[in-house]
Formats: sequence, C-alpha cells, structure tokens
Amino acid sequence: MRVELVTVGDELLLGDTVNGNAAWIGQRLAEHGLEVTRSVVVGDELGAIIGAVTEALGRADAVITTGGLGPTYDDLTRDALAAAAGVELVRDPALERRLRERVAAAGRELQPMALRMADVPEGAGVLGNSAGSAAGLRVELAGGVVYALPGVPFEMRTMIDEVVLPELAGETRVARLTLRTAGLWESVVATGLAPVEAMDGIRLAYLPDPAEVKIRITASGPDAPRRLEEAERACRELLGDAVYGAGDQTLDRVIHRLLGERSATVATAESLTGGLIGAELTRMPGSSATYAGGMVAYATALKEELLGVPGQVLKEHGAVHPDVARAMAAGVRERVGATYGVAVTGVAGPEPQDGRPVGTIFVGVAGPEGEPKVIRPLLPVPGTGAEIRGVIRRMTVVHALEQLRRVILGLDAGPGGEAVP
Amino acid sequence: MRVELVTVGDELLLGDTVNGNAAWIGQRLAEHGLEVTRSVVVGDELGAIIGAVTEALGRADAVITTGGLGPTYDDLTRDALAAAAGVELVRDPALERRLRERVAAAGRELQPMALRMADVPEGAGVLGNSAGSAAGLRVELAGGVVYALPGVPFEMRTMIDEVVLPELAGETRVARLTLRTAGLWESVVATGLAPVEAMDGIRLAYLPDPAEVKIRITASGPDAPRRLEEAERACRELLGDAVYGAGDQTLDRVIHRLLGERSATVATAESLTGGLIGAELTRMPGSSATYAGGMVAYATALKEELLGVPGQVLKEHGAVHPDVARAMAAGVRERVGATYGVAVTGVAGPEPQDGRPVGTIFVGVAGPEGEPKVIRPLLPVPGTGAEIRGVIRRMTVVHALEQLRRVILGLDAGPGGEAVP
Repeated sequence: MRVELVTVGDELLLGDTVNGNAAWIGQRLAEHGLEVTRSVVVGDELGAIIGAVTEALGRADAVITTGGLGPTYDDLTRDALAAAAGVELVRDPALERRLRERVAAAGRELQPMALRMADVPEGAGVLGNSAGSAAGLRVELAGGVVYALPGVPFEMRTMIDEVVLPELAGETRVARLTLRTAGLWESVVATGLAPVEAMDGIRLAYLPDPAEVKIRITASGPDAPRRLEEAERACRELLGDAVYGAGDQTLDRVIHRLLGERSATVATAESLTGGLIGAELTRMPGSSATYAGGMVAYATALKEELLGVPGQVLKEHGAVHPDVARAMAAGVRERVGATYGVAVTGVAGPEPQDGRPVGTIFVGVAGPEGEPKVIRPLLPVPGTGAEIRGVIRRMTVVHALEQLRRVILGLDAGPGGEAVP
Repeated sequence: MRVELVTVGDELLLGDTVNGNAAWIGQRLAEHGLEVTRSVVVGDELGAIIGAVTEALGRADAVITTGGLGPTYDDLTRDALAAAAGVELVRDPALERRLRERVAAAGRELQPMALRMADVPEGAGVLGNSAGSAAGLRVELAGGVVYALPGVPFEMRTMIDEVVLPELAGETRVARLTLRTAGLWESVVATGLAPVEAMDGIRLAYLPDPAEVKIRITASGPDAPRRLEEAERACRELLGDAVYGAGDQTLDRVIHRLLGERSATVATAESLTGGLIGAELTRMPGSSATYAGGMVAYATALKEELLGVPGQVLKEHGAVHPDVARAMAAGVRERVGATYGVAVTGVAGPEPQDGRPVGTIFVGVAGPEGEPKVIRPLLPVPGTGAEIRGVIRRMTVVHALEQLRRVILGLDAGPGGEAVP
C-alpha cells in the first residue's frame, strides 16, 4: 500500500508556515504500518493541484490532500478534484443546511462565498467535520482513492483518525524502534551495524545530532515484532554501552532515572556552556527530585570564588585544563550538597583560548566514591564558521551528560572520549 | 525564474523531522524575489530521487535538493544526480584531502565509508562546506541547474546564502530589514502597524517567537532603500521602546553592547529556566567581557544557601514570589560581584506549584542604584500540552533579558509586564 501526500497552500511554498501537517500524517501512518512514499507541496493554483494529484495517483494507491477546502477563491482543491475526475461540482444540501445553521447559531450572516464549502465533485463522498466548517471529501479516481482534508491541523487530524486510518490500515505489518547513542560518529555506527543491515526484512536509518546518533530500526513482514527484537539485540551487542536509551528515553531522562533509582542528585558547574547543561537537566517535569542546581563560572575568577578551584592551578594552566574540570566537579558537588557533580571547561570558539585550540574540552565528574574523573571528549571540530560555537557547546552538553551516565554506571570513558589521568 | 525543491530523507516522510529546510528556503528565496513553485519530499531511495529531480527539471529552471549527501549507504543524492546526468561518480582529490585532515585533527580514524563524501558526479561543481564534512554539488542538467545541498540546516543555509542566491537572484531590487520587539503580542504589533502596511511598495511579515515578534520589512521598486528607511522610521515611531534592535542584533547582543558601553557586567540567578538565561548570555563570542556567571538555584533550599534569599520568605511564600526574585537578583549581584543581577522564579509547568498557576513568573533585576525591581511578565499560557514547559521557559528567558535591558536604559516595565511594588 503506497500513500502519497499533496499539501496545498502558497504559505507553505513561501515558508510562512512549516509543513507540520505532512510530518504529523507521516508519523501517524507509520505508526499504523503505512508508508508515505512521497510528499508534494503545491501552491493555490488549479493546474498545479490537478497535476500533483494526477501524478500521485499514477504512483500510489491512495492520495491524501490537505488544504484548499476553505471558502475563499484561492481555495481550489474541490475544483481540482472535480476537474481531475471529469465531473461537475454540485451543491450538497446537507452541507448547505449545516453551514447555514452554524452561521445562524453564531448570530452572523452567511457570506455567499461560504457556500463554496457546500460544493462537492459529483459522486464524491463527504467526510463530516465535527470541529469546523470545511467538510472533507473522498473521491475514487484512476483506480485509487483521494482523501481531501482541510488544512486546519485539528480538523485534519480528526479525519485521519476517524476515516482515513480505519479504511487504509489493517493488514500491513511493520514494527519500529529507535536506539540512541552518544559519543559515536555516524560513519562508525553505520560501519559497525553492517551485519544488521543485511538481516532479512530489516532497514536501518541514522539520525545524527551533534555528538549523538539515533538508529531507527524498521522491521517488516508477517513476523515483524520478532525480527525487530532480533535486530535490536544485534544492534545493542555491536554498539555496546554507547547505547544509552531507546524510544523517547533522551539522555537527560535516562540520567534522572538512574539518579532516582539510587536516591541520588547531581549538581552542575559550567563554563563554556553557560548554563546549557543545567537547562537540559531541567527540561523534564519533576526534575527537581534529582537535579539540585549549580553554578555558571564563566569568568575565570569565579571558578575560584564560587567553586574553590585553586588559584594556583588557574594561574599556572589557565581555565582550560583537566585539573580545573576536576576541581570544578568536586567543588560544585560539595557546595551544592549533591551526590554527583558534573563540570565542563573548554574552548567554544571561534577563537582559541589560553593557547588551546577550539574544541578542546574537559569534562569532570565527581561522585561519592574515589577521585573525580576527567574525560577529554573527541570532538569533530566543525570548520571555522560562525556556527562553530553553538555546535561545540551542544556537543559539550551531550558529552558531559554521557560521561555522567557512565560514571553513575561504573563504566569507562567509552568511545566518545579518553580518560585524562 | 521557477525554482523547485526536492527534500530527501525517510525521516521526513515518516514525520520524525518536520521539513524546516523547505520553509526556510522558501522564505529566503521569496525575500529575494524568487518563487518556489513546488516542493517535493522523497525517501532515501535511488529511483525516487532520480524521478523527483528529473520531473522537477522538466518544470523549473533551477532545482534545489537538500539531504542525502552524508557518508552512509542510504545517502543517495550523489548517486542519483550522476545517474540522472548519465555520468560516473569520481573521487575529488581536494575533498578527500579535506576529509582526511578533519578526521586526523580530531584524532580519529577515517572510515572507508566516509570517503563517499568525496565522490562527485563527473563534471559537477563542488560547493565548499565551511561548517561541516559534506560538500554541496552544482550540476547542469536538462537545460537547468541542480544545487544539491546537505540536510544539516546551518550547512545548507550557508550554501544558499553564499552560492545559490547570488547565482539565482541577482538583479531584483529589494531592500530588507528586520526589526525586533520583545513583550508585544503579534496581533497587537500587526494592528499597530496597519499604516505602514498601507505604504507604497512595502510588505511586512511578522515572525513570532515565544515572547518576541520580529517584523520583516521588505521594500521593492527602484527606490527601495529610501522606502525602506521611511517604513523603518514609521515602525519605530508606532512601536516605541518595545523595539530592542534590528537585523542580527539579538537581545543578548544588545545587552552585551549596553553593558560594554557602561563598563558594566551582569550575573544571573535562575530557577525554572535551569541555566537558559546564562546560556543565552554566553552565545556570543567575547561575552565574558560583560557576563560574569551565575547560579542555578533549582532546589528551593539552594535559593537560601547559594543566593541568600531569607529562609523566612521561602517558608512563608514558597519559591514563587516577588520577594524571592528580588532577593535572588540582589544576592547574585553581590556574590558574583557584578554591576547588575537578573533573576527569575516561576512555574514552568505542566503542574501548578506552591498554589501558583502555570506561567506565573517573577523577574528581578538589581542594579547599582536603588532597590531591585520586580516585574511580572504577562504570558499567554499556551494551553495544557506537553510542550507548555519549553515554551514558558523560553518566554521567561526573553522577558528576563528584556527587563534587564529596560533597567539598564532606565525604562519602565513596558508592554510585556507589570511592575510589582
């Protein structure tokens, strides 16, 4: 079963609106084992809509359009479907009655233009809209079916759930899971997972973010759930403890869970990230149970005043040094009174600092046992552009959280960094 | 000049990613008088990419593709363009050298797969990527031109601005400026600017973000620069001191400039934002000259321990109270030794806290003169969904910075908030 989307609206081509409808429909259909194979955006132009729908029907079994069903003269989806089917638009008495009632109930007058919303291509089915004025349409055409839905998101969503999915979903069997890794490069992950790519009925996709790679495993076929389980097991064996979670278990959520299980808390000491690590650890509702707080010691002097980094170390080595990360982690742990302290110092760029090149980062993690650990993440330095600073800061956040996770679990520095003695 | 977009990636069809690239390109091209006439999304499938590019070239003068240029075997845009042009992929020595240097600089090993990024269709031009690994391509094909750009947004954006626009735009006479406001609602801004919308040759677009509205003024015609100047003056008169900057003068940059002019510094004390305000004030290179550092006092007890908020106030009123914001601002100013202290406390949600509803925020600003000021921002609470927390945190950051700006300049609380005595 191949499904294509045709989204109608000048505002999408102009970029005034992001195509959230297409993303939502893609996700919803995928959840039900249906594959969107192409998605097209055309403007409010009759010929373009007719062309896009006709071409889509040439490839797909079903086409879903959104937009162009409103009352104004640039709403042309109804006209396009009638033209594509070679039929006339006829006024639907029930739709007209409903429009008149809605307008009367609001104490307003019906604009003649609004009656356009009661026109349907001859022979088309009408999809009721419990949430708004514009009805949807169902048109059988060229051996396929077209569902024309309004562009207003919650009206469209209701029709997808109530009409389109019950009709289209059913027998396709697909199972899907996303694994999350930190510290690995995309090409390393993909090379390592070649044996899984070769498994029957399995497809892998790699979704890279700074310092993270997500792997989406899709299994298809009648025993999709079993295949998915096997592929997941194989991926986890090949990638080892670089896999920190699955599905919506983001790194911050994993850390809150690990801390919660140990009745432990964490505090943050930040320099180049300026507060981003604390911000990440407070995204989740309820994070106050396991995140206490921290310090942003951006000015070098504050590293001594707020966190107790020895002045001698700062004077000798500057702010970007393993011993500074170590002392920051221990200092914030003690001063905030948390079980763990995580700290970062480094050079975000775009200029070198204290003789250290851009991308030099040290992560310190202090815990209840032993000396604080210091790890130097291996960052791919993303060129020299203006964006470098943001990317390095984001990578630093991920590496700091990943190293915190590894210390909590008693793991070594892993593939993303090297321990500094 | 007709331009079509082809976006490549399973993640877009599956709805894991919203097609923000297409929206950004549409907007950027429209600003330069170019029209995107169709936008297609296809998956990581060779035949689909070849088909989409070939069809697009049949209708348009130029085609821009994004995505599918990475190192993995599901990155197929290079292969598709070679097939469409009927040529071979050849390895580009300069690209190969650059890849090897980047990997060596990061102290890693080159995966053979990564060398795919050095392959280009024979005869194609290479678009350098200052921000990442994947080069872009320029292929002349079927009487038109195809620009193949990476899917990573900031890499793609740089190539659009540096290569695609200079080639495609050219002679269109357009002048453009963006004004930035904080604390105003979009509908208020749009209503207030009706007289400017009526000006000859002027188009306004409103780009709302949480707690901010940017107004893009586009002037066209032979005297576009003069018209733009008049429209800007009119906007500034109508909006008053809610306009904090223009162009790339983001709120954090404006604050650093104001502080720098006064040889002053600022420190931050954060609760619900967990470090986001500090992170915002350290985005800019060189921000250490005017941003000192701060505290994240997420746990209520830390507000007393780290910032000296009287325990009595916390016991009586809870953590979300004007007197807490006031004491946090004064406390962080003193303990960090900065000229100004800015502080926030409030309820990010999704649940109420201390009997206060979601969206209750207090901003405190302490300066060198007089008592610290407390302002209560007037937030539109965005429903009850899972996203509420992120939006409220973001709005809080903007209001805190805006109130800091207003205190530095000696202005009142402005349209975005009310002063709390």
